[in-house]
Amino acid sequence: MERITPRTLSGFMELLPGKQAKLEKMMQVLRNTYALYGFAALDTPVIEDAKILLAKGGGETEKQIYRFQKGDSDLALRFDLTVPLAKYVALHYNELAFPFRRFQIGKVYRGERAQRGRFREFYQADIDIIGDGKLDILNEAEIPAIIYRVFRGFGLTRFQIRVNNRKILNGFYAMLGLSEKSGDIMRTVDKLDKIGAEKVAAILKDDCGLSNEQADEILKFIAIRGSNAEVLAALEGYAGRSDLFDLGLSELKAVAANLSAFGVPEANFAVDLTIARGLDYYTGTVYETTLLDHPEIGSVCSGGRYDNLAEYYTDKALPGVGISIGLTRLFYVLDEQGLLNDALPSAPADALVLPMTEDVSKAVELAEALRSAGVRVQLYGEQKKFKQKMSYADKLGVPYAVLLGEDEIAEGKCSVKNMTTGEQQKLTAQEAAAHILKGLAEANGPLILEK
Amino acid sequence: MERITPRTLSGFMELLPGKQAKLEKMMQVLRNTYALYGFAALDTPVIEDAKILLAKGGGETEKQIYRFQKGDSDLALRFDLTVPLAKYVALHYNELAFPFRRFQIGKVYRGERAQRGRFREFYQADIDIIGDGKLDILNEAEIPAIIYRVFRGFGLTRFQIRVNNRKILNGFYAMLGLSEKSGDIMRTVDKLDKIGAEKVAAILKDDCGLSNEQADEILKFIAIRGSNAEVLAALEGYAGRSDLFDLGLSELKAVAANLSAFGVPEANFAVDLTIARGLDYYTGTVYETTLLDHPEIGSVCSGGRYDNLAEYYTDKALPGVGISIGLTRLFYVLDEQGLLNDALPSAPADALVLPMTEDVSKAVELAEALRSAGVRVQLYGEQKKFKQKMSYADKLGVPYAVLLGEDEIAEGKCSVKNMTTGEQQKLTAQEAAAHILKGLAEANGPLILEK
Repeated sequence: MERITPRTLSGFMELLPGKQAKLEKMMQVLRNTYALYGFAALDTPVIEDAKILLAKGGGETEKQIYRFQKGDSDLALRFDLTVPLAKYVALHYNELAFPFRRFQIGKVYRGERAQRGRFREFYQADIDIIGDGKLDILNEAEIPAIIYRVFRGFGLTRFQIRVNNRKILNGFYAMLGLSEKSGDIMRTVDKLDKIGAEKVAAILKDDCGLSNEQADEILKFIAIRGSNAEVLAALEGYAGRSDLFDLGLSELKAVAANLSAFGVPEANFAVDLTIARGLDYYTGTVYETTLLDHPEIGSVCSGGRYDNLAEYYTDKALPGVGISIGLTRLFYVLDEQGLLNDALPSAPADALVLPMTEDVSKAVELAEALRSAGVRVQLYGEQKKFKQKMSYADKLGVPYAVLLGEDEIAEGKCSVKNMTTGEQQKLTAQEAAAHILKGLAEANGPLILEK
Repeated sequence: MERITPRTLSGFMELLPGKQAKLEKMMQVLRNTYALYGFAALDTPVIEDAKILLAKGGGETEKQIYRFQKGDSDLALRFDLTVPLAKYVALHYNELAFPFRRFQIGKVYRGERAQRGRFREFYQADIDIIGDGKLDILNEAEIPAIIYRVFRGFGLTRFQIRVNNRKILNGFYAMLGLSEKSGDIMRTVDKLDKIGAEKVAAILKDDCGLSNEQADEILKFIAIRGSNAEVLAALEGYAGRSDLFDLGLSELKAVAANLSAFGVPEANFAVDLTIARGLDYYTGTVYETTLLDHPEIGSVCSGGRYDNLAEYYTDKALPGVGISIGLTRLFYVLDEQGLLNDALPSAPADALVLPMTEDVSKAVELAEALRSAGVRVQLYGEQKKFKQKMSYADKLGVPYAVLLGEDEIAEGKCSVKNMTTGEQQKLTAQEAAAHILKGLAEANGPLILEK
């Protein structure tokens, strides 16, 4: 037979089972946390009508999209989860209860140039809250609590949710008579971390055509630092000169006000006036999240408030707020940096049951008894020598091996071997299950390491 | 702005949140059960190199496949989870521990003619156990236990796992000197339920060219019925005439022998000599699963033993056994027949917290306290009249509304309203969480109804 060399396309993540188990655990944290905040699971098709996906049109998106014909249909793979959400809400508007909260963890597709750490198929994990006409600021205030619970669920403590409000920025630029240049200014300010204040000032003056005074005002503004209370107090100094600014400030204060009620420690939250989120799409609170010890990763969870989710599909005003985690890229970077906790068991089973007699019925019963108690069990049926069986247990990385021979059967027990310590003891099935579950609980730890 | 009418492509399932919640629960049962039997979660790309997906080539598959160019690449969407598994095992052979047990629940794509109940994008939920060169019969014996646990997990009792062995069929046809016609014969016998014994006999004689005696022998053979013990005893009568038949019989006996040890009741298992599974691919035990009160749905979980998973990609012998559930179609049919249990809560939240005061901080704390206790809570922040808030709770289908006004805050309590009974009581946050969780546990029931 002619054989074809198997390969996986470049830019497509395909993990070995141990790594996949770690990614699954991160997804489980995301699903559980999103559900705890009342978000409905949603699942939209990967393929959509190309005209619908590209309603907004143009730019990088159009070049990167996977688009193809099938019969007479012009089809495309989704490149994010936001456009399909907009379509979904517009299409099912009459059947949804607003505010509508949904989460979606799904694969999206972008045919980017292949490059290390760049993926063409990757998971996004999104939540959005969509209002019908209006949406209370309390929803924007709740988002940092959700981000906080997600990253704590990953086992992290050293992360910061950085928050700003686009109305403050737009109001501030309006005060300076720079509304029309606000886009260019924000894109320049966004480079502050990378190029420093001096170069930002130079670009603002030379390329954006700002006066010295205007550039100085902007640099002074984005240099506002301190505790949340200090930053908010400094912003009060600008109040009364722009309605938009004042509205933004009151929103930012509302978001900061309930932080402790939401259980978010001050240390994990910062009002940061340099956060702008490039897109015009955002109109209120904007969020970025950074790992304090790994600023080079950039924002690991971003989003914000927008006024019109689905303007390309409906004349209904559908304001919302949402955040997105680029899960595949985050996972890739954490793995590259050795931050995935390898001390956590990642074998598909908690215990490998090894029958040592010809009649396997007692081993089958034992495996089922352990499973009924909640232990994930693989029953090993291969006719191999003992040494080979144990070497399989090792290769699988299974935390416990459970041996059942004539002696054990006669005693109504089984031999439970801790594969890490080598310790072995004879226990009944019920005792074995309790022993294994206790050991697993003790071996628990963070999914992601900090160092 | 010019608007595009939103739509979802025909043949693509897109559910409203309540329905999606039911599908998610079925997926959770599948994930949990597969994990309990030591299967590793796997996730392969949706897009593969077309040449690799079509290595086997030909037939219906090639016509239905979504295939397209991107740059110089000839790409295709996977049409099942078996071919990507074969590629995966061949590609990662050196890094896997064999037997390799994996489950995958993922979307696959077939551009079939659009038709009611036919999907172009649908979930398959597969498990496979792959051996390196060899694979013990115990693995085949374990499969019915897994199917049993899955369907019990769905809440069903009236289902039957029907099992046969291809070696028995092939051995039997060899006894009659009909090996070369076995494919045609199996396809004809497969129609027995639909067209009856007489028409089967006619086709066997007229179209397949069998003698009267041969046709009679076959009809007598597939008419063997009774308890598992009775069918196995009847099969013993054919023993000693074909090595292949004898091997198949010993395998079938091994599969049946450990049923009670695996906890599968006799009523949920039947040796059925009419089960053949069309594909040549299968070489040993074959499985089908039917809902006893809904035979018209056909098999809801099928699979079998095969000798060579990845012969198109590697010269390694990789025998295996696997089953597949066509989840999207199953869900669609259950829904059509009204068998999804609507009495189960399907709201995204267990409780809707309604702040009745201007300062929402106490309501925020209450929501967080309930969440910490494991209650899925939506905090409702919209400025609406009380009646509108309750009407939202109704539309959402949330089982509990939790009201927090001045009185409750003064007492350190909240008012918990059961939205089904209308019953309302004042409780502390801790009591409220316990009350809600208890109520939810009592409202528990089967995901799927039998009637």
